Amino acid sequence: MTSTPKNKVCILGSGNWGSTAARIIGGNVTKLADFDNDVRIWVYEEMVNGRKLTDIINTEHENVKYLPGHRLPENVVAVADAAEAVRDATHIVVVIPHQFIQHLLDTVHGHTAPNARAISLIKGIGISSQGMTTMTQIIHRTLAIPVASLSGANIANEIAEERYCETTIGCADPDEAIVWRSLFNTPYFRVNCVSDVIGVEFCGALKNVVAVGAGFIDGLGLGNNTKAAVIRIGFLEMRRLAMHISGARIQDSTFMESCGIADVITTCYGGRNRRLAEEFVRTGKPMHELERDLLNGQKLQGYLTSGEVHAYIDGCGVADHFPLFTNIYRICYEGAPPASIFEGLNVDFSHDRL
Amino acid sequence: MTSTPKNKVCILGSGNWGSTAARIIGGNVTKLADFDNDVRIWVYEEMVNGRKLTDIINTEHENVKYLPGHRLPENVVAVADAAEAVRDATHIVVVIPHQFIQHLLDTVHGHTAPNARAISLIKGIGISSQGMTTMTQIIHRTLAIPVASLSGANIANEIAEERYCETTIGCADPDEAIVWRSLFNTPYFRVNCVSDVIGVEFCGALKNVVAVGAGFIDGLGLGNNTKAAVIRIGFLEMRRLAMHISGARIQDSTFMESCGIADVITTCYGGRNRRLAEEFVRTGKPMHELERDLLNGQKLQGYLTSGEVHAYIDGCGVADHFPLFTNIYRICYEGAPPASIFEGLNVDFSHDRL
Repeated sequence: MTSTPKNKVCILGSGNWGSTAARIIGGNVTKLADFDNDVRIWVYEEMVNGRKLTDIINTEHENVKYLPGHRLPENVVAVADAAEAVRDATHIVVVIPHQFIQHLLDTVHGHTAPNARAISLIKGIGISSQGMTTMTQIIHRTLAIPVASLSGANIANEIAEERYCETTIGCADPDEAIVWRSLFNTPYFRVNCVSDVIGVEFCGALKNVVAVGAGFIDGLGLGNNTKAAVIRIGFLEMRRLAMHISGARIQDSTFMESCGIADVITTCYGGRNRRLAEEFVRTGKPMHELERDLLNGQKLQGYLTSGEVHAYIDGCGVADHFPLFTNIYRICYEGAPPASIFEGLNVDFSHDRL
Repeated sequence: MTSTPKNKVCILGSGNWGSTAARIIGGNVTKLADFDNDVRIWVYEEMVNGRKLTDIINTEHENVKYLPGHRLPENVVAVADAAEAVRDATHIVVVIPHQFIQHLLDTVHGHTAPNARAISLIKGIGISSQGMTTMTQIIHRTLAIPVASLSGANIANEIAEERYCETTIGCADPDEAIVWRSLFNTPYFRVNCVSDVIGVEFCGALKNVVAVGAGFIDGLGLGNNTKAAVIRIGFLEMRRLAMHISGARIQDSTFMESCGIADVITTCYGGRNRRLAEEFVRTGKPMHELERDLLNGQKLQGYLTSGEVHAYIDGCGVADHFPLFTNIYRICYEGAPPASIFEGLNVDFSHDRL
């Protein structure tokens, strides 16, 4: 008797979102005949209350540091060595802060199985005057395996509490997409698949710039009408930028998925990009000071991306086609008054179509 | 010397929104050479503190009952007789609650100038198993004049406070659209024009059904992710219904205007449709009781429209293509539990295009 070796999942990253993903996938693999029940999760080893975090996870089945209060399935096994974690894995879920990605990839490079493929849950892309680089592109460049993306209106804690929400998987191969979907989909976490890998990532990053604009409106104490106008224009400038930066590679319909419109809305009403932008207006403190005081020195994604977007559109000479993004940039970086966010917003987007 | 008679504006309706429109138009006509400075506003006569409301408006220049605290321009003249108000008017702005429209139209019928045209600011459309009837269609049927529509993310009080927002005018004739725009556009109230008259009205009515769904989510105490999912699906069911009920007459791009996506967002975070739906879940009281207690017996637009939409989609045998609208209907009218809003929502909208 011969049998095909089973597929095997490895999750690289065990923060809030990684642990939530482990909860979902750990539950799903037990119902999938072609998947090994064991799910390995790479944990950056640290001491918590005098014990190794991997030991706590493997005995208490809870990530007490990053997802306290939610039990992990017992088939989720914490591993401190990333190279060991990916060995034999056919399905690698990458879910770490984007600044650590290259180092992690270098660590696992050469240890992945020949038939491995990956999915990126990382938020954030790089934009320069040359164009954009997404996380799936970075992963593919180093590991030379197929890479999908996952993004949506997904606050990790709400998912861990099993509150209904949606997400989007971007995967170029439709058969692979079905497999990824089977790992993530649950009755409370609904997965839609699209073929547009980079569109999903693009939306996940650019929505943070719109959220900075929405936060300025909250900081100015303006109302619902105004905020809805800024969200609308921001959403349409995202779509216009996608058209400009990707040619026809990003699809219009991706913007209607959870990773697009739903995530823009969520992020403009909750989340730290909105919150810090509100504080920026209310306190008049510079952004780097707020990052230091409120984010322990972490960089605010929307602020960073705003600067990158401006370098690109300014370099291409098209900044005046993106008045909202330009105004947000000037308020963030050039000391323009927050109320200048409304200048020149009367742009016609009705002929934009990806 | 001969001269072309000047255009003249009449506003039919002096509630919160009508008075706000009078404030904007009264200011704009003084800068338009081809418009008479006098703007007549028809006021349903009532006694306020022992004085006629028309007298108060014409002496104090404030609608103390429906827009207190905001001065009306002195060229806005209150008139108690609707037939007199429309006489000689070339531009008639209709802005009264939709249940009074037919009576008002019958009153002014035969008194309008031959070159008159109208714009409807009324929210609400009628849907039956036969299809839909919009306010512009009702106005056109009675008065036989061209009719445009205006709708957007527009809470009247926020506009009266001159907070930045956007609106959409739907007008079939591009030259007429420019004139309507000149009457309404200000630096804080930005008008975009589209040719899709009924699409603008459709969005303004259907968004209330989505807001009922959003209110249920708030009543269930669920979070941002869940609400964003319901808004996204609701928005896409609106678009799908437009496609079904209007053929190709409603345009896809209308949904990206202020009357579309922006108004859906605003209404799902503020407004009474959302609020009553939240109360409905929290208190368990039937909707007619909440209408009586919280709306002085007025009908809740989203609740009404939900019933009408269901009669249409059920009559056409396509209710299963609209799972969210169907679930909202069952919760409102058939005693289904609010948590059933999530049932069967995994619909693929990616091929919908108007």
